[in-house]
Amino acid sequence: MELWYTEKQTKNHGITTKIKRTLHSEVTPFQTLDVVETHQFGNLLVLDGMVMTTDKDEFVYHEMISHVALHTHPNPKQVLIVGGGDGGVVREVLKHPSVERVVLAEIDGRVIEASKEYFPAIAAGLSDPKVDIQVVDGIRHIEENPDTYDVVLIDSTEPVGPAVGLFQKPFYQKVYEALKSDGIMVAQTESPWFNQDLIRQVFADISSTFSITRLYTASIPTYPSGLWSFTLGSKQYDPLEVEEAIMEQIDTKYYHPGMHKALFQLPVFVQELTENKE
Amino acid sequence: MELWYTEKQTKNHGITTKIKRTLHSEVTPFQTLDVVETHQFGNLLVLDGMVMTTDKDEFVYHEMISHVALHTHPNPKQVLIVGGGDGGVVREVLKHPSVERVVLAEIDGRVIEASKEYFPAIAAGLSDPKVDIQVVDGIRHIEENPDTYDVVLIDSTEPVGPAVGLFQKPFYQKVYEALKSDGIMVAQTESPWFNQDLIRQVFADISSTFSITRLYTASIPTYPSGLWSFTLGSKQYDPLEVEEAIMEQIDTKYYHPGMHKALFQLPVFVQELTENKE
Repeated sequence: MELWYTEKQTKNHGITTKIKRTLHSEVTPFQTLDVVETHQFGNLLVLDGMVMTTDKDEFVYHEMISHVALHTHPNPKQVLIVGGGDGGVVREVLKHPSVERVVLAEIDGRVIEASKEYFPAIAAGLSDPKVDIQVVDGIRHIEENPDTYDVVLIDSTEPVGPAVGLFQKPFYQKVYEALKSDGIMVAQTESPWFNQDLIRQVFADISSTFSITRLYTASIPTYPSGLWSFTLGSKQYDPLEVEEAIMEQIDTKYYHPGMHKALFQLPVFVQELTENKE
Repeated sequence: MELWYTEKQTKNHGITTKIKRTLHSEVTPFQTLDVVETHQFGNLLVLDGMVMTTDKDEFVYHEMISHVALHTHPNPKQVLIVGGGDGGVVREVLKHPSVERVVLAEIDGRVIEASKEYFPAIAAGLSDPKVDIQVVDGIRHIEENPDTYDVVLIDSTEPVGPAVGLFQKPFYQKVYEALKSDGIMVAQTESPWFNQDLIRQVFADISSTFSITRLYTASIPTYPSGLWSFTLGSKQYDPLEVEEAIMEQIDTKYYHPGMHKALFQLPVFVQELTENKE
């Protein structure tokens, strides 16, 4: 018998991948959580029926949501991750020697536990003494910690279910307030092929809150369309004005300092999503 | 009844897309040829069971195989396209005013006819008086036309069936000979996620033939992994040394002169495919 996991990424299109077996299935207080072992991508984490991460391509998302902001801020010490219970973003943030404390605000503790069990290489950083794991609503944590962080990374699920509030303008205003006066945020903002209205809206909302807003993309084969976007909001530092020479060398598989500025040379149709058409 | 077209892009992974209807199916002397109308991507051309192009994302492949070489060569006049019967590369090449003649060497005339019927926007350039359509074996055409072309673009199908010979070292040597003394070639070279051995081999083969070899990628959601690679071989001009200011403005949806050099800042794992590990 052949088993295939199929995710309809839109109403009319999806991916299908052959699995060896289901490793774990549960309904947490927040979402369904499944882990399957695939032939192509190793272990695969599924939340509410959507691929969150896999052993083989996880490095792209986790590196790309982290290093652009951490190499734009000259001295990031206090970092907050909203969501990100699998630990992959924590692992990447810890590669920056200036970082003194990483707070992980994950609403669903079961994601953290499942990641430790089935994705040990992704969860590797969670036991580091610099890491403060808080199983809380990230929005509430942000409200209670004004003027605290150098960098805030919004590692959310899709804008359905528990993450809906993380894609709305009042949330970006709260993130702004939780950041210090030279702080930077990055949010994952879906596919430039399939989620154009959302990207336009989020880019406009972050632009109206932060003085500098930049979009960039990365190739993630298990995410819808294979192309994913990230939106950066910054109070002071522009990623286009960072000197490559002062970036520390970090051990990565996707991001490197040489691509830092090149990332912002977007395809024409993606660039257009960032331009105010009113 | 719902109809879904599923392509196994590897033995263990694929895409699945909902279709409205099958528009055309035939067995040509060279391959199977199907056209289906999809909900997500408009009309979709399938050769030997593999997605070749769709209405919605065709611009990426056609622009990206063309403009990098045509903006690297200072004065491209004679251009050969091997394969490319759908006409999309012809359309892009014709956007460069220096081009005097475009030869399309397509082995399967049925692809040309089907494209004219079902993909009129892609086939639009095929009736231009600068275009010389030859239904021939591209390898034979190249052998018979030494020292002829400024740019040769290898718009082949996958390295199975009729296109196998287009991924082999003796072919690149013949392309070298068909080019003038300052000529440039670009070949489509598959997915950096799923075809790493092929990319390594092709890059090494082109490197041993041409003095300058460069790899770049583009996001194509209907191709395996969503990330596609192109390999450029050049006798004289380096794409990294072209001045953006001298590139003419062209009407495009993906490529623009500002991304020309940025394209070569590859992800670490892709860059490694171009490095000789022996």
